Amino acid sequence: MASMETFECIRKRRAVREFRDSHVPQQALMRILEAGRLSPSSKNTQPWHFIVIRDRETLKTLGGLSPTGRHISGAPLAVAIVMDHAKLPEIDGARAAQNMVLAAWEAGLGTCWIANWDEVRVKKLLGVPKDLDLLTILPFGFPTVLTVRRKKMRKPLGDITHAEMFRRPLQGFASDA
Amino acid sequence: MASMETFECIRKRRAVREFRDSHVPQQALMRILEAGRLSPSSKNTQPWHFIVIRDRETLKTLGGLSPTGRHISGAPLAVAIVMDHAKLPEIDGARAAQNMVLAAWEAGLGTCWIANWDEVRVKKLLGVPKDLDLLTILPFGFPTVLTVRRKKMRKPLGDITHAEMFRRPLQGFASDA
Repeated sequence: MASMETFECIRKRRAVREFRDSHVPQQALMRILEAGRLSPSSKNTQPWHFIVIRDRETLKTLGGLSPTGRHISGAPLAVAIVMDHAKLPEIDGARAAQNMVLAAWEAGLGTCWIANWDEVRVKKLLGVPKDLDLLTILPFGFPTVLTVRRKKMRKPLGDITHAEMFRRPLQGFASDA
Repeated sequence: MASMETFECIRKRRAVREFRDSHVPQQALMRILEAGRLSPSSKNTQPWHFIVIRDRETLKTLGGLSPTGRHISGAPLAVAIVMDHAKLPEIDGARAAQNMVLAAWEAGLGTCWIANWDEVRVKKLLGVPKDLDLLTILPFGFPTVLTVRRKKMRKPLGDITHAEMFRRPLQGFASDA
């Protein structure tokens, strides 16, 4: 099983929308699901469900139902994150998702967050009860080499950090832009 | 600088509300801020600001203004995450926060998410403009030994995983409860 130090994993992770034609090993999927399961949540309510989708027809259909998620169609696997009467569904769900994304990256797998879809059809396709909320669908697969080499574009640290109060500059820090 | 493999970091991380009386090294703070800066966000808008708070009086006051965040008072440092006209503020902010939490844990530092506070007073104290949103305040510090040894309580994997459709059991997986 591949391994990577935590900060290196955070630094190197890239959004991945093109996947190699290889299946996701069972051990890697286990790590992804465990990373979600072990996440923190409001009052430890763990208000999540993870639907693992490997059926090629379902993946293709999901890609077609997600305007920003066409790449689901080309992924060997996706995990739908469903929130179950959560008090802070987006915060709890996104923290679990980020754990899963990093565990996946350590195992060599990439993904890209899906933010919109045909709500009625997708919930019906996945059998999600009406009173539960679909947070996202994360497609997972091994990235193409080209994707991984892409430069990460971010604001410099000085533009987003403050000391004690908003707009007071934080001294002694500089990062690569 | 301490290091830890990613999945191990996710697995071992604990909520920390009691901190040792040691300051946060500059290099560790740098890692925390970089982990936030390098996070993914909707359309890479990076709609966040990080206010680093080390002033003892400010930390004490923040603890008093946060019903679930009294432990800020005892932390050597806190980072307030402020969202700047984000389309998905909770999702983008929570993913950045989770990156910061894991980078901190790798460096030996713990935190616990703060979910409520006196909005008007805290924003005034930190000089946050009215049109920006405070997502959370994360206190950081070295955890007491007792906290780290606590068992992590989570639902078993079988209760939260599904195959292809909701309520269809996922075969071949089992985790320690």
